[in-house]
Amino acid sequence: MTKSKEPDNTQLKFSTKIRVRYAETDQMGYCYYGNYASFFEVARVEALREKGISYRALEESGILLPVTHFEIRYFQPARYDDLLEIQTKIVYLKGVRIKFTYQTYNENGELLNEAATELVFVNTETQKPMAIPLNIIHQLNH
Amino acid sequence: MTKSKEPDNTQLKFSTKIRVRYAETDQMGYCYYGNYASFFEVARVEALREKGISYRALEESGILLPVTHFEIRYFQPARYDDLLEIQTKIVYLKGVRIKFTYQTYNENGELLNEAATELVFVNTETQKPMAIPLNIIHQLNH
Amino acid sequence: MTKSKEPDNTQLKFSTKIRVRYAETDQMGYCYYGNYASFFEVARVEALREKGISYRALEESGILLPVTHFEIRYFQPARYDDLLEIQTKIVYLKGVRIKFTYQTYNENGELLNEAATELVFVNTETQKPMAIPLNIIHQLNH
Amino acid sequence: MTKSKEPDNTQLKFSTKIRVRYAETDQMGYCYYGNYASFFEVARVEALREKGISYRALEESGILLPVTHFEIRYFQPARYDDLLEIQTKIVYLKGVRIKFTYQTYNENGELLNEAATELVFVNTETQKPMAIPLNIIHQLNH
Repeated sequence: MTKSKEPDNTQLKFSTKIRVRYAETDQMGYCYYGNYASFFEVARVEALREKGISYRALEESGILLPVTHFEIRYFQPARYDDLLEIQTKIVYLKGVRIKFTYQTYNENGELLNEAATELVFVNTETQKPMAIPLNIIHQLNH
Repeated sequence: MTKSKEPDNTQLKFSTKIRVRYAETDQMGYCYYGNYASFFEVARVEALREKGISYRALEESGILLPVTHFEIRYFQPARYDDLLEIQTKIVYLKGVRIKFTYQTYNENGELLNEAATELVFVNTETQKPMAIPLNIIHQLNH
Repeated sequence: MTKSKEPDNTQLKFSTKIRVRYAETDQMGYCYYGNYASFFEVARVEALREKGISYRALEESGILLPVTHFEIRYFQPARYDDLLEIQTKIVYLKGVRIKFTYQTYNENGELLNEAATELVFVNTETQKPMAIPLNIIHQLNH
Repeated sequence: MTKSKEPDNTQLKFSTKIRVRYAETDQMGYCYYGNYASFFEVARVEALREKGISYRALEESGILLPVTHFEIRYFQPARYDDLLEIQTKIVYLKGVRIKFTYQTYNENGELLNEAATELVFVNTETQKPMAIPLNIIHQLNH
C-alpha cells in the first residue's frame, strides 16, 4: 500500500455537456470532424475547473499547456443540436506531461468517438517544458 | 485640384481568391454565414501586403488593428469548393480609422454578398487608438 | 388601434450564456471578431427554443432560415473564459423576414457589442422565400 | 511477385500551401491545435484534385468520405501568417478505406507536426461503407 503521486482515476472523471452549433455542422449533415478538438479543450478546462484549477489563471501565472499529441477514433457522427456528453478522464500526470481521454456520447447514450490528448506544461517566459507544479498535482488528487 | 491625403480609390482595389473548405460548409449546404468575417480578414491582409504592408510586422511594431464595425448583406450562398473572388476596396483612412469594403463573387461571376469593416489603429502598449502612421498612409497612396 | 400580429417586444427578450473557448481567442488576446456570428446563432436558436420552437424540427419540416443581413458594432473585446451574456430580442416578423438584435455583456456587466441579423424563411424544396408559418407567429407571440 | 492494386507511394506525394489566418491563431500566439484537421482536409482534397478526382463531384455522385481516425503529433507551433507547406501522402487504399499522412512545414523548413487520417468510402443512399470504386483506384495509381 504505497502512497503515489499518480492520481486515482476513479476520482478524476468528469462530464461536460456541449450542444452542437449550426456553425459546427458540415454539408454531410455531421458535426465536422475537426470541431472535436475544441470540444475536448472545453471538456478538459471544465474538468480542471471542477478541481479548483482555472486554466485562465494558470496562463496568467506564466504556464502554458499546449497539446503535443491528439488522437481520435470516430464511430458515429454527431448532428446539429445534439446535446453531447463528453466524459473526460485524467489518465496520468508524469514529469512535464498530462494526459486526458475523452468519450463523446449523444442523447441516446451512443458512443460517438473516443479520443486522447497529451499536453505539456511550458514556462511562458522560457518557452521550455517545466515540471507540473506540486499544487496542481495536489489539487488534481483531492 | 488640391492634393489630398485621402487615398485614390481607383488605386486601392484588390482581388483575393479563397476556396470554400469543407469545414466551412453547414448542413444547409452553404458556406456558413459566419465564415465571411475571416475571409475578409484574409482579403484585407492580402490587400495590405500588395501595398507593401505586412500586418504581422505591423503588430510586431506595436500596432493592433481591431475591427469596430462589420456589416454584410447576403444575396446568394457560396458552396463547398467554390473558388470565391473577394474584391476589396479601401474606402477611407480617417484619423484613427480605416474602412474596407468587400464584394464576394463566385466562379460564375455572381455577386454573393457585400460587406464593410471599419478598423481602428490601436497602440498595443497603451491599448488606446492612435493616428494612422504616416508611412502607412504613404504606402497605401502609392 | 387595430390588433397587430407584430410581437410585443417586452415578451420577446431572451438571455443566453456562452463561455469564450480557447479556440475562439486570437493572438490579440481577444475573442476573434468573426466568432460572434456563431454566438448569435446559438442565442437565437435558444430564444426560439424558449418559445417552444425547435430550429432543428423547423429544418426537418422543410423550412430553412438563412441570414440575409448581419451587422455588429464592437465596443470592447471579450476575452478567454469570459462567460458572456447575450441578450436577444425579436424586433419584427414581417412577411418572409424575422429580425433579431443582440447585446453582448461580460461578467462585469460591460456592453461589449451590439448586433442585428435579418433572416428569411425559405422553403427547402423550392428554395424560395415563404411567408412565416402562422403557428410560428403564434408561438412567438405567446 | 504479383502485381498489386496498391498505389506506388512515390507517385502519391503532394504538396499544398496554406497560410495561417488571424482567425486561426489563439492567445498563446500559436495556430490553434484544432485547426490542422481542416488544413489536412484541404490538403487531401487538393491531392485528389491533382489526380483528377474532384471531391465535390464524388459527393454529388453519391459517395461520402467521412474520417474514421485522426492522429497528430505536434512538435512546434505554426504562427500567424506562416505560409505552411503540407506534404500529403496516400499510404493505402484497402477495401473501403483510404489512409493519408501529412507533414506540416513552416517557411524555415521546420517540421511542425505529423498526422494521419483514415477515411471510409460510404454510399450516401445506404449510409453504409462501400468498396472504393475502381476508377478512383485507377486514377490514384496513374
